[in-house]
Amino acid sequence: MRITIADIAQLIEGELIGSGKMEITGCAGLKEAKEGDISFLANAKYEPLAKESKASAIIVPRQISLAGKTIIRVDQPSLAFSKVISHFLKDTPPLIHAGIHPTAVIAQDAKIASQVSIGAYVVIEPKATVGEGTKIYAHSYVGHGTRIGSNCLIYPHVMLRENISVGNKVIIHSGTVIGSDGYGYVTIGSKHIKIPQVGTVAIEDDVEIGANVTIDRARFDKTVIGEGTKIDNLVHIAHNVTIGKHCLIIAQVGISGSTDIGKNVILAGQAGIVGHLTIGDGAVVAAQSGLSKSIKAGAQVFGTPAQPLRQAFKTNAYIQRLDHYVELIHDLKKRIEELEKKVK
Amino acid sequence: MRITIADIAQLIEGELIGSGKMEITGCAGLKEAKEGDISFLANAKYEPLAKESKASAIIVPRQISLAGKTIIRVDQPSLAFSKVISHFLKDTPPLIHAGIHPTAVIAQDAKIASQVSIGAYVVIEPKATVGEGTKIYAHSYVGHGTRIGSNCLIYPHVMLRENISVGNKVIIHSGTVIGSDGYGYVTIGSKHIKIPQVGTVAIEDDVEIGANVTIDRARFDKTVIGEGTKIDNLVHIAHNVTIGKHCLIIAQVGISGSTDIGKNVILAGQAGIVGHLTIGDGAVVAAQSGLSKSIKAGAQVFGTPAQPLRQAFKTNAYIQRLDHYVELIHDLKKRIEELEKKVK
Amino acid sequence: MRITIADIAQLIEGELIGSGKMEITGCAGLKEAKEGDISFLANAKYEPLAKESKASAIIVPRQISLAGKTIIRVDQPSLAFSKVISHFLKDTPPLIHAGIHPTAVIAQDAKIASQVSIGAYVVIEPKATVGEGTKIYAHSYVGHGTRIGSNCLIYPHVMLRENISVGNKVIIHSGTVIGSDGYGYVTIGSKHIKIPQVGTVAIEDDVEIGANVTIDRARFDKTVIGEGTKIDNLVHIAHNVTIGKHCLIIAQVGISGSTDIGKNVILAGQAGIVGHLTIGDGAVVAAQSGLSKSIKAGAQVFGTPAQPLRQAFKTNAYIQRLDHYVELIHDLKKRIEELEKKVK
Repeated sequence: MRITIADIAQLIEGELIGSGKMEITGCAGLKEAKEGDISFLANAKYEPLAKESKASAIIVPRQISLAGKTIIRVDQPSLAFSKVISHFLKDTPPLIHAGIHPTAVIAQDAKIASQVSIGAYVVIEPKATVGEGTKIYAHSYVGHGTRIGSNCLIYPHVMLRENISVGNKVIIHSGTVIGSDGYGYVTIGSKHIKIPQVGTVAIEDDVEIGANVTIDRARFDKTVIGEGTKIDNLVHIAHNVTIGKHCLIIAQVGISGSTDIGKNVILAGQAGIVGHLTIGDGAVVAAQSGLSKSIKAGAQVFGTPAQPLRQAFKTNAYIQRLDHYVELIHDLKKRIEELEKKVK
Repeated sequence: MRITIADIAQLIEGELIGSGKMEITGCAGLKEAKEGDISFLANAKYEPLAKESKASAIIVPRQISLAGKTIIRVDQPSLAFSKVISHFLKDTPPLIHAGIHPTAVIAQDAKIASQVSIGAYVVIEPKATVGEGTKIYAHSYVGHGTRIGSNCLIYPHVMLRENISVGNKVIIHSGTVIGSDGYGYVTIGSKHIKIPQVGTVAIEDDVEIGANVTIDRARFDKTVIGEGTKIDNLVHIAHNVTIGKHCLIIAQVGISGSTDIGKNVILAGQAGIVGHLTIGDGAVVAAQSGLSKSIKAGAQVFGTPAQPLRQAFKTNAYIQRLDHYVELIHDLKKRIEELEKKVK
Repeated sequence: MRITIADIAQLIEGELIGSGKMEITGCAGLKEAKEGDISFLANAKYEPLAKESKASAIIVPRQISLAGKTIIRVDQPSLAFSKVISHFLKDTPPLIHAGIHPTAVIAQDAKIASQVSIGAYVVIEPKATVGEGTKIYAHSYVGHGTRIGSNCLIYPHVMLRENISVGNKVIIHSGTVIGSDGYGYVTIGSKHIKIPQVGTVAIEDDVEIGANVTIDRARFDKTVIGEGTKIDNLVHIAHNVTIGKHCLIIAQVGISGSTDIGKNVILAGQAGIVGHLTIGDGAVVAAQSGLSKSIKAGAQVFGTPAQPLRQAFKTNAYIQRLDHYVELIHDLKKRIEELEKKVK
């Protein structure tokens, strides 16, 4: 996990300004970077951020200079940085042997690609398929007819129920349950009668799903997690929810049934989303918010019930000054009483 | 999963008004129904809802007509609808073989009924019992002395600790943990000394528990989930909580220790309930609410701290107009200053 | 689990006032104690609490009398009570056999102490170590190079990823995942590129972790759970979080990345903590609060955004009287209009 800055410059075919001997141990955004990290500046307008960054080296556009900083100039900093990250990832040794552990129980009619790693006590049910390069760690369960693409990483103790589809390069962390029944009942008198949940879940390519997440299968049709979306730990996604591409769903968020979420949406930690809503592309729901109405593309909301961000901040400021306003009202009341005495 | 409307009419011994050839693919409530669904109208007062419903057919009381809708008239629509749901459920093929998988580790003195399905790598500890018709999927764990009734469905990766009792026709989804120690300590100086949690958990008949739920065992005595109660994903139920019959506990709710919940209570998503409270029959706690005081039967509350629903809505309306009131106060202040100048 | 009060008096070398024949079945704090429990009074100022307690017997300092109560006088009540709790814990029979179950898959170069219990289908990966007296129940997973100390209790279905360190006398409940990847991406254009998470997690001695908790590994360096800290169910702890000694983290709390928490901190249920904050020793964050700023030692906060407790209560009181203030403003407005008519 150590590489000199000169080697990185060579890897990304950039122009190095500074000493090439420095060792780089990680990569991070400008704000988060620590000593030893390499970072990147994609847009000249963030130059002040780059100057304050603790990164030991920064990949920058061709025209940029950062006095006193070690930089590598390239044509496309984002692309170059992505190559560096891939380089760091490549160095992580696989912790699972190639091949199928003798204790794995794999149905005869499951279709397993030739280059896979399947750990101890994995269970793969009939008609399931596992693609090339996919690693499934110990104790995971792949249900009847479930299809897992290529180059996926399924950590120990993952549970995929029947007829789920998982794309390529998907990462699923431990304890996550995909395809459990949606929460659907018809109430007859005081009793709740179960509505069969016979749909499925589709996880598209490049999705990453954290630990102990739950994603319910659709009643009919399917619950969808769009390409490149990243889901943090302990998130709940109800039946028939559709999440677009490249969303960020932070820890402990809950999304109720049939809500339709656009692409590049951010749902911050512990936010709760009511069912049957539409959330437009690029919208942001702040932490702990309770969203009970649909919001448009680009909207940013906060609070329970959620308000536009700017209005929510104003409202919070008023709330925290309520003591002042109450005092003011009582003062005005006294002055009116004074006036009333004088004016008869 | 397809059946003609004529076949349904015959199944529920009803009078069909409309074409019998239409195919029905699912069943749902009036509001949620889509094309292809059959729904039901139990009470004439909901007729407007029935008229707006997208259901392809509706089961109605004998006296009802719905112009332009395919209907089936019966004496008891609720009961008839329940029969239709059961019919749909019946068609779901079992995804686990009858019998005991050779890799299951079952203690010699566990009592397993003759007609069961037990999947790969299931562990059943000494003195546990499993009733007729119960299906336990792969990797589940049944602790020492735990008793599971008949016709239960235990999905993969369920963990039942020792001495738990599970009734009949109970469904438990994957990743759920029942009988973990309650969170109980005595703090001596700055250290927290564990209080032994030697009670148990009782899950009554017809309960359904979602994925990755946690239900802690009681300190002494037992934590109880009442008959017919339905629990969604990622819910936390602390030690010594008692939940009555036919409650709905929605995703990510947390219930603190020793709280006593009546029957037909609804706790909406992400609500948090303080310990040692009493919640009356039929009460409703809205989503994300924080309930810190006991509430009576039929109460409906919202907010943190929770207020009666109507009052909470009023309070929220005031809060969202705080800018208006602050402006008004400043206007009044100016007018008082004007008056004070004039009146000396 | 039954012992007479006379036996307890002997065990803790105290002076018994009252009948020695009474049977004690449990131990609890003064407020929580029920009939049959023994409790303790560490400080004379809590005497009123002791008088109201339902405990059947109370361990008290030498000088204390409690009319009508069965008491045991000792020099150090806290220490004595701790001995009683240990006595009760000692009686719990182990539910797992000594030794290694034949189905456990243990890597040849894992180092397992001689006195351990390892259940069915446990997987222990290469270079892992397990200390003396540790019990690992069925289906648990111990990753590559992970070190577990002595006298730990790892319940069924626990997942410890690679290179984690777990101290001595640690208890981890079922479904908990330790060492999953931190949630870290660099966004390039609209895509989120994974940042490698190559750090680890250190769990210190005497920690207890509830069911279905998630603790992410650090990006570099380590996520730390301090000695004696007790974590409830379904808690989320992000990468690079540091928690001090003897904290209480209640159910469903979420702590974002790199936040640094002191010792003896209490985070109540469903609280959410923003990343990169510092929380001082002994601070308390009330239930469901959203903490977005660092707080000092001893601070007590409540609400979203969190305010000092006293101010939050005042703010809540104002909020719940908003209807009154709005009415008052409208009344003042009318009276001003009256005055304005008179004063021209």
